[in-house]
Amino acid sequence: MESAIDKHLMCPRLRARRIDDDYTPPFPAWVGRADPAITHYVMAYFGVQGKGQHQLGAVCSGLRRICGMLALDGGPRHHDLAHYVDAEGYDNMVAIAYWDSPEAFLRWQSSEQVNAWWDSDTLGDDGLGYFREVLTPPVERFETLYAMPEGMEGVGVVMGTRSDEIQEHGYWGSMRDRIPLSQTDAMQPEGELKATRTPRRIRVSGHDNLVVIRSGQDWTQTQGQERELYLGQMEPVLRAGMDFLRDDGRQVGCYSNRYMQHLDARGQREEKSFSVSHWRSLSHLERWSESHPTHIEIFGTFMRMVQSLQGELKWKGYHEVSVLRAEDQQFEYINCHPGTGLLSGA
Amino acid sequence: MESAIDKHLMCPRLRARRIDDDYTPPFPAWVGRADPAITHYVMAYFGVQGKGQHQLGAVCSGLRRICGMLALDGGPRHHDLAHYVDAEGYDNMVAIAYWDSPEAFLRWQSSEQVNAWWDSDTLGDDGLGYFREVLTPPVERFETLYAMPEGMEGVGVVMGTRSDEIQEHGYWGSMRDRIPLSQTDAMQPEGELKATRTPRRIRVSGHDNLVVIRSGQDWTQTQGQERELYLGQMEPVLRAGMDFLRDDGRQVGCYSNRYMQHLDARGQREEKSFSVSHWRSLSHLERWSESHPTHIEIFGTFMRMVQSLQGELKWKGYHEVSVLRAEDQQFEYINCHPGTGLLSGA
Repeated sequence: MESAIDKHLMCPRLRARRIDDDYTPPFPAWVGRADPAITHYVMAYFGVQGKGQHQLGAVCSGLRRICGMLALDGGPRHHDLAHYVDAEGYDNMVAIAYWDSPEAFLRWQSSEQVNAWWDSDTLGDDGLGYFREVLTPPVERFETLYAMPEGMEGVGVVMGTRSDEIQEHGYWGSMRDRIPLSQTDAMQPEGELKATRTPRRIRVSGHDNLVVIRSGQDWTQTQGQERELYLGQMEPVLRAGMDFLRDDGRQVGCYSNRYMQHLDARGQREEKSFSVSHWRSLSHLERWSESHPTHIEIFGTFMRMVQSLQGELKWKGYHEVSVLRAEDQQFEYINCHPGTGLLSGA
Repeated sequence: MESAIDKHLMCPRLRARRIDDDYTPPFPAWVGRADPAITHYVMAYFGVQGKGQHQLGAVCSGLRRICGMLALDGGPRHHDLAHYVDAEGYDNMVAIAYWDSPEAFLRWQSSEQVNAWWDSDTLGDDGLGYFREVLTPPVERFETLYAMPEGMEGVGVVMGTRSDEIQEHGYWGSMRDRIPLSQTDAMQPEGELKATRTPRRIRVSGHDNLVVIRSGQDWTQTQGQERELYLGQMEPVLRAGMDFLRDDGRQVGCYSNRYMQHLDARGQREEKSFSVSHWRSLSHLERWSESHPTHIEIFGTFMRMVQSLQGELKWKGYHEVSVLRAEDQQFEYINCHPGTGLLSGA
């Protein structure tokens, strides 16, 4: 067993972990490990938005075009495709792309083809909405967690390797304890979201210590009782919690929540989903997770599922959580409806 | 709103609270407040034990005798009476008595009548078991919590007054944050329970940072839907959790658990109950509360009950938690079965 915080990111603690040194987690979990030479990751969300059957084909074409960009030289080391229908009934297709260097991302972004697409004055003239949300967390400002012994998702795929079993999980507050910066900093939020409008675009600037969590599950390999429990009991409760955050999240400090399903390269749904939500602070995310009735139901139902299956899970779960400086965030929206992403919070 | 830690017990923090300074709890709660001149409280549990219908009368007589002692000059400022049937099927009648000074308690204990009773070589010759468990926490080593706007229980009755609404509650870890010593100390356990046997008595000495929690509920004033929810849904789940701790608690660091019902002065059951449990450390109690399936069910069921009733609760809840030095604990057993109190853990 080892610390979730990688050796080269450890420093003398000004702030204690919540656990005693002899704590043993009730079940195993792992985190992504990266080459110590890497200082930042880039997590870029590219979205296309349209409403109704008549726009769906165009939305899919928009996503394919983005995939074409991602395949260019200098593109991301990994990307996922996903779909969700938002509260206003719009289809949103999203590519989530990961680089292990902001410089590499900027080179790609400023390449002629990408530039000609995103910076074009006519993007959105097709009636669709487009958005780009780019996070650039330094390695001391994010953590990952994998509840499965093999395989990784999201940024972990780019990190490339994984830890041995880690100590800091299985208790409330462990998310914070896994973030290297928590050794010395309370990571309290400062500032507000601010929108800047030009005739065609809205840019939202984030504030210090805004949090983005991507939290996912994969039920591809579940069968029999486990599959029934997940789809019949767990998923509906999870969906109810996600709907709460999407519709009423502001009252608990959640700016935005998208509960999405993975698409494969041909646009077919996979048996994998995840939510991506933006929070005013890590404390707000902690409080909702620990004490809000919607998450208590998620947690309780999950614990019952694990108990029923006596721990023999084929279900996989993971998350990645970043606590961002204002300068680590860029949000830009073209022709999107006002409830999209961080627009409603700005 | 104010801190749970009383002004005269505040000191520069070496260890941060789990919450940000602007945290607002989701519902109100209060703590007991005492005269700053008071440095320690005494929480003394006097028990009588017998098995079966034919001993029940004698057990009741034993409890009445204890009540007689408590009524003597120098007796406690408050006491409760309670009954439970333990895992081995014994009836246990207990008086829990509170003093606000160890010196006052010692004067009472060494008085001629009390001495003649407890130190008698013939105590237990009636075939009953007797035990005395005395805790003497300094004020920086315990906390209280009252979820009801009026009335107090346990040590709070002796403390006499209550705080305004406090900030440190409604999140995991708030129990620790309410204990004044947590400002500077991790309160990790040291040492082991040790039993010392004489022909007639077994004394158990505690270890540093052993934790005792008394956690209670009062459904006297509940009616209609609330009463049905408490008795039909909440109480069975609570009982299952209490049974787990009683029977299998050792695996989670719980030495002993008693789930008791209040008795009035005439020995009639009241609609109030509480559990008293002894833990290896505050961390062990935290981990069970936060993540064990039995407590997740208790917490989830309670949250659903509160939601159903839209917060309009006549149900009352409270607890008191002490983190004790070895020298703050005295446990003594006469003719008790080996599963009694701390005997099984020593």
